[in-house]
Amino acid sequence: MIFRQLFEPLSSTYTYLLADEQTGRAILIDPVVSTMDRDLAEVRRLGLTLAYTIDTHIHADHVTAALELKRAVGSKIAAPAHDRLPCIDLGIEEGKPFQVDGITLQPLHTPGHTDGHFSYLFNDRVFTGDALLIEGCGRTDFQNGDADALYKSVREKLFALPDETLVYPGHDYKQRFVSSIAQEKARNPRLGGNKTLEEFKHIMANLNLPYPTFIDYAVPGNRQCGVCPPNLPENLENYCRQMTQSPQG
Amino acid sequence: MIFRQLFEPLSSTYTYLLADEQTGRAILIDPVVSTMDRDLAEVRRLGLTLAYTIDTHIHADHVTAALELKRAVGSKIAAPAHDRLPCIDLGIEEGKPFQVDGITLQPLHTPGHTDGHFSYLFNDRVFTGDALLIEGCGRTDFQNGDADALYKSVREKLFALPDETLVYPGHDYKQRFVSSIAQEKARNPRLGGNKTLEEFKHIMANLNLPYPTFIDYAVPGNRQCGVCPPNLPENLENYCRQMTQSPQG
Repeated sequence: MIFRQLFEPLSSTYTYLLADEQTGRAILIDPVVSTMDRDLAEVRRLGLTLAYTIDTHIHADHVTAALELKRAVGSKIAAPAHDRLPCIDLGIEEGKPFQVDGITLQPLHTPGHTDGHFSYLFNDRVFTGDALLIEGCGRTDFQNGDADALYKSVREKLFALPDETLVYPGHDYKQRFVSSIAQEKARNPRLGGNKTLEEFKHIMANLNLPYPTFIDYAVPGNRQCGVCPPNLPENLENYCRQMTQSPQG
Repeated sequence: MIFRQLFEPLSSTYTYLLADEQTGRAILIDPVVSTMDRDLAEVRRLGLTLAYTIDTHIHADHVTAALELKRAVGSKIAAPAHDRLPCIDLGIEEGKPFQVDGITLQPLHTPGHTDGHFSYLFNDRVFTGDALLIEGCGRTDFQNGDADALYKSVREKLFALPDETLVYPGHDYKQRFVSSIAQEKARNPRLGGNKTLEEFKHIMANLNLPYPTFIDYAVPGNRQCGVCPPNLPENLENYCRQMTQSPQG
C-alpha cells in the first residue's frame, strides 16, 4: 500500500493519496484544484495512474480538483450519493465498500458538518473529512449543518471504532497531521471526555466564526464537481489559481 | 497484523502489542511489570501466544516485565546488544532485522537518552522509545545520556524516515497517542523546525528536572531484565505492584 498525506496551504486541506502497489492504480481523497499539478506530479513520480477521486463532502473552503483531474487524466469521480451531484461517476453509500484493486474504503455516513458528509475507513485508518478534526470539528452553521447530527456521528460512529484507529482529518491549522480515536476520545475539547450533547451544542452555537470567505463560490462550483467561477474577485483568485493561470504559468 | 497500544499510568508508559494474525505469535515492546497481567489478558483475549518481549532501552522509570513474562509464559527476551545484559535471549543490533513470523522490526540505534537506546521501525510505524516523544524527547542527564548524540539520532536518523511514518512514543503525559515524522519535524519544540544543536543542548541543559524517583531501583532491576527490588520503600511499591501482591491480589 502506498500512502501520502499532501497539504494545500490556502485552505489548510489535507489530500490523501492511496494506491495499490501491485497494480499502480491510485485514488485521491479530497484533492484541491489549486494543488492538482503538485498532486499529479506526485502520482507520476510514484509511477501510478489516478483511477478515482473521492470527496468526503461538498467543501465550502476550496474547490475540489475532481472535474479537472478527470479532464486531465481521465480519473473517475466518486462522491456521496446523498448530495445527488449530476457530475459524478459513482455515488458513495454506507454499506457499499468503495474498491480500487487492493484499496477498499468503508464509507461511513457522518452528517453534521454537512448533511451528506462521509468519512472513509481504510483498514485501521479513518479519513474523517470535516466531521472530526484533531482537537476540533467542522462548523455546523451552513450546508444543512446540524450539531445534534455531528455529535451523534462522532460519538456513536467514529468513537465506536477501535481506539488504535488512526484519524486523518480533512484539515489542520496547526501542523498536526494525525491522531487516533483514543486520542480524540481523551483530548477533543468539543467532543471528547464526558462532553454532553448540550455542552457540544452550546460550544457550536457560540463559536462566533466569520462568514466563510469562499463559500458562495466554492459550494456551487463543487456541486458541479469542481468548476471555478469565471470572474472571481482578485483577492480570491488563488483559490482557483490552477484555473486562472496561463498554460505556461 | 494485530496492533494494540496499551498504557501504564504510573510511569505513563506505552506498551505495544504486535502479532502475526496468521500464526498468532505476538511480541510486546516495552512491557511494564506492574501491568503484565493486563497485557497477558489482552494477549489471551486475542487468542495469541507471546513469543518475545523487546525493550527499547534500560528504563529508569519503570521495571520491564520481560523476565516475569518469560517466567509466566515462556516468552523470550530481546534487548539492545549494546547494553550487554546477561539475561537476554537475543541481542538487537542495527542492520539485523528482528523477526517473529510476519512481524519484522528494523532496529535503529538512537542513542542520546541512553547510549544503548534503540528505536524500532515496523513498516510505516516507528516505535521511538524515549528518543523522540510527541513534542518532546527523553532527558539526557543520566545513563550515559548525551544531548549531542540525541540530536543526531533524531534529526539524522528518525527525521530521515518518510514524512508519513507514524511515531509511537515510549511515553506520553498528556493523553497523546500518536504523531508522525512530518508532525514532529514541524512541531517538536526541542528538535523540530530549524532548531540547532546548540539550541537543543541549551534546552536540555536547562530543564531543571528533579532526580528521577525510581531510577536507583529501576536501572539495576532492568539490567537483570526486570527484577523488582525486594525491599522497596512503601511509596514506590506500586512500581512493582505485580511482584508485591499476593497471588490472589
